[in-house]
Amino acid sequence: MQAEAQAPNPETTLRAMQAIVGENACLSGDADMQPFVTDYRGIYHGKAQVVVLPASTEEVSQVMQWCYANHVPVVPQGGNTSLMGGAVPDGTGAAVVINLRRMNRVLAIDTVNDTMTVQAGVTLSGARTAAEADQRLFPLRIGSEGSCQIGGNLSTNAGGTAVLRYGNMRDLVLGIEAVLPDGRIYSQLRGLRKDNTGYDLKHLFIGAEGTLGIITGAVLKLMPQPRSTAVAFVAVQSPAAAVQLLGEAKRLSGQAVTAFELISRPALELVLEYLGNVPSPLPEMHDWMVLIELTSGTDAESLNATLMEILESGFGQGLVLDAAVAASLSDAQNFWRIREEISDAQTRTGGSIKCDVSVPLSRIAAFVEDASAKVLALEPAARMVIYGHMGDGNVHFNPLRPRDQPAKEFLAQWYARISGLVDAMAHAENGSISAEHGIGVVKRDDLTQFKSSVEIELMWQVKQALDPRNLLNPGKVLPARRR
Amino acid sequence: MQAEAQAPNPETTLRAMQAIVGENACLSGDADMQPFVTDYRGIYHGKAQVVVLPASTEEVSQVMQWCYANHVPVVPQGGNTSLMGGAVPDGTGAAVVINLRRMNRVLAIDTVNDTMTVQAGVTLSGARTAAEADQRLFPLRIGSEGSCQIGGNLSTNAGGTAVLRYGNMRDLVLGIEAVLPDGRIYSQLRGLRKDNTGYDLKHLFIGAEGTLGIITGAVLKLMPQPRSTAVAFVAVQSPAAAVQLLGEAKRLSGQAVTAFELISRPALELVLEYLGNVPSPLPEMHDWMVLIELTSGTDAESLNATLMEILESGFGQGLVLDAAVAASLSDAQNFWRIREEISDAQTRTGGSIKCDVSVPLSRIAAFVEDASAKVLALEPAARMVIYGHMGDGNVHFNPLRPRDQPAKEFLAQWYARISGLVDAMAHAENGSISAEHGIGVVKRDDLTQFKSSVEIELMWQVKQALDPRNLLNPGKVLPARRR
Repeated sequence: MQAEAQAPNPETTLRAMQAIVGENACLSGDADMQPFVTDYRGIYHGKAQVVVLPASTEEVSQVMQWCYANHVPVVPQGGNTSLMGGAVPDGTGAAVVINLRRMNRVLAIDTVNDTMTVQAGVTLSGARTAAEADQRLFPLRIGSEGSCQIGGNLSTNAGGTAVLRYGNMRDLVLGIEAVLPDGRIYSQLRGLRKDNTGYDLKHLFIGAEGTLGIITGAVLKLMPQPRSTAVAFVAVQSPAAAVQLLGEAKRLSGQAVTAFELISRPALELVLEYLGNVPSPLPEMHDWMVLIELTSGTDAESLNATLMEILESGFGQGLVLDAAVAASLSDAQNFWRIREEISDAQTRTGGSIKCDVSVPLSRIAAFVEDASAKVLALEPAARMVIYGHMGDGNVHFNPLRPRDQPAKEFLAQWYARISGLVDAMAHAENGSISAEHGIGVVKRDDLTQFKSSVEIELMWQVKQALDPRNLLNPGKVLPARRR
Repeated sequence: MQAEAQAPNPETTLRAMQAIVGENACLSGDADMQPFVTDYRGIYHGKAQVVVLPASTEEVSQVMQWCYANHVPVVPQGGNTSLMGGAVPDGTGAAVVINLRRMNRVLAIDTVNDTMTVQAGVTLSGARTAAEADQRLFPLRIGSEGSCQIGGNLSTNAGGTAVLRYGNMRDLVLGIEAVLPDGRIYSQLRGLRKDNTGYDLKHLFIGAEGTLGIITGAVLKLMPQPRSTAVAFVAVQSPAAAVQLLGEAKRLSGQAVTAFELISRPALELVLEYLGNVPSPLPEMHDWMVLIELTSGTDAESLNATLMEILESGFGQGLVLDAAVAASLSDAQNFWRIREEISDAQTRTGGSIKCDVSVPLSRIAAFVEDASAKVLALEPAARMVIYGHMGDGNVHFNPLRPRDQPAKEFLAQWYARISGLVDAMAHAENGSISAEHGIGVVKRDDLTQFKSSVEIELMWQVKQALDPRNLLNPGKVLPARRR
């Protein structure tokens, strides 16, 4: 109650915001604000004083200055596709939401420097398309690319299906511009591959989920478009065989392995059911499959030969049980569609316990087997939907409700226990309880269990140095300090 | 005088250090300390209370705790190969130097996860050799690899000749361990390629030149060893032609371009003179040359074919004037030796104005031409030794004294003016005044000219949050705060 009492009257806030960004760029009615205060999964329903849609960095700066002066909390928002409740305000109604969707211009593409300068509100697919128009690749590849924004991708250090080759979002940016909690503008929109002039401040803001500053622009790295792509859908003997096959793929192809995605049998069954008319790439069902993608700058013939060499080596060693090699672009797209639709298939089915864990690659196979066994010991009818970026040591480990159990009941019975179990097992293997999805509010308090007190204290030291009034995306990421 | 008065008596400090690390691990006589208080170039001659050689992270932590409690400044030191005076104490004699050379163990190599866990005192060549023993590549490649240490490589975000393909040191590390100014240990020695659980704290310490913590250990990324390498020494029409040729190389080979190093005629002449018995790779002298290295996971034949394709395209477009392709490993080594010995050749000759600048690749050719013209307008007899990592937009731009002018005289006359001129030109092109070498004390005060007040203030906010007593490597990197 006290926080609300201190905050300015919503009318005052609205008028101040309107004076900065214009009336049309302020949303204040409940209906208008609803899409901006409810998270992507429909779990978090927050409130805001006003949703502001600034058109420039200068406007963001002015909004922040006003909010800082008036002690108003601010929630920065991109495409609002966070799975962790990281992009929506809490229920107090004290916050101003700043959504960057109007800052959606590609400012420059430099094909010699292989860089692209964008405003933070450009969608990922917008950035990819702009790069393609100049025969370049912007390699980040995640499911929400049509709506997620570059600023959000940076703030959450987005990952996806091409990290094995190109790295996470953090690795794909050379410079950023960000507005600090007090409205000052940190601007380093430079396309330099080497710059050792003091602390590399951009890393403070990348992956900080909007708690240290609002990223308003970025210089992104562009890559050569691959000249050829080779894709195979491969049944493997076991998760351990998949890891061995990845080793062979790396050994035989150097850095051509772009994606190496695990798919469990229940994941494949679920997505085939969901898609209906899409045939399985392989004639028989197997317990474990991997989708392998190689890309290279050389000709397709030699890349296909490399893929065949990898598969033959895998057959020879008993790692591979069967394999379908994409003979056309359409084959490849079908293989990828199966992989990519697993997430939506789960959402539609309901009742999935989403764990997004990573462990060292040398431990991932044992982890998948052990964690599956433990979950099945609790609920033998759970469907073990396990898939994702095995090449990065990262799997989406999502036990799904038994066919005959309602989602709500399954989640009420098992969510906390199973996700706690899986996270603890990953942690015990020196792993991460959130490989890609971040912390937001969902996993904030779990950090006290999985981070050392030194780490949590360091995070707070940085937070207080940059945001002493704790106004920027409050309640996200940082757990309560230990005493 | 006041600082010295506050500091404990050197005898007290020595005894405290001896109690922590043992008598044999403390050096205190002037002669014994001399190699640790004088920088690599012999320019900075500092003083210390004692040089401590801890054997474990725990010992580093205890030393730091004692120094923190007693307000004693600490200078962390690896191989002491800084070109910027970043690793030696100032002249007050107040500091304790902590050299990590005894912490030189490779703790683990995981060939499935492709990671290597090392103590910070392992030399770069030690790390490379250990990786090679397991058929892996640790790709950082810099001249001082025999003596520089991983901790120093991380603290300075080292670059070198393979950044184009593999990135800077920051890109080659997954986890670090560091001792904080008050002695607490931040430990994240994990080999995860994806981990989005809060702020990525390791980036605070990487590139901070030991001002925020002492890096004591790291988990490094390993790469597949390339199956083939192709090297060419190529005369190009101009710096602009070199950039165009790089574009062709990227287009035709994807990410196989590992090194793309520019060499100016005066640089080649100097090094050939210095080496004596090494023949020039090309029959005639040219104004501009590039050393190109491609590496790949595929066979040598197809990689050589790609190299030939690049060179033919370059000839066809008039970019390439002549080219020597290495026909053997020994040819390749000779080409590389010429490139690598330029630095020593300069040191022995004396009188070189070292500028380590980067600009966007799209501006590097014009920058090299314009800056050369400006320097030659001032001193027409200067030898324009320009070389280095053009593929990263980074050149070592090092005007050398005229043959008949003594080094001291040339430097006295021109150092400040020419380096100021070159740095300002790079800055005007959105470039960096220190692409690789860092800031140390040499360029500390230049930052006030080349960084915004927001950046400098942010650096100080972080510094004060982590090191409120300003005890860790004081006087390095951070310029005086603006008021």
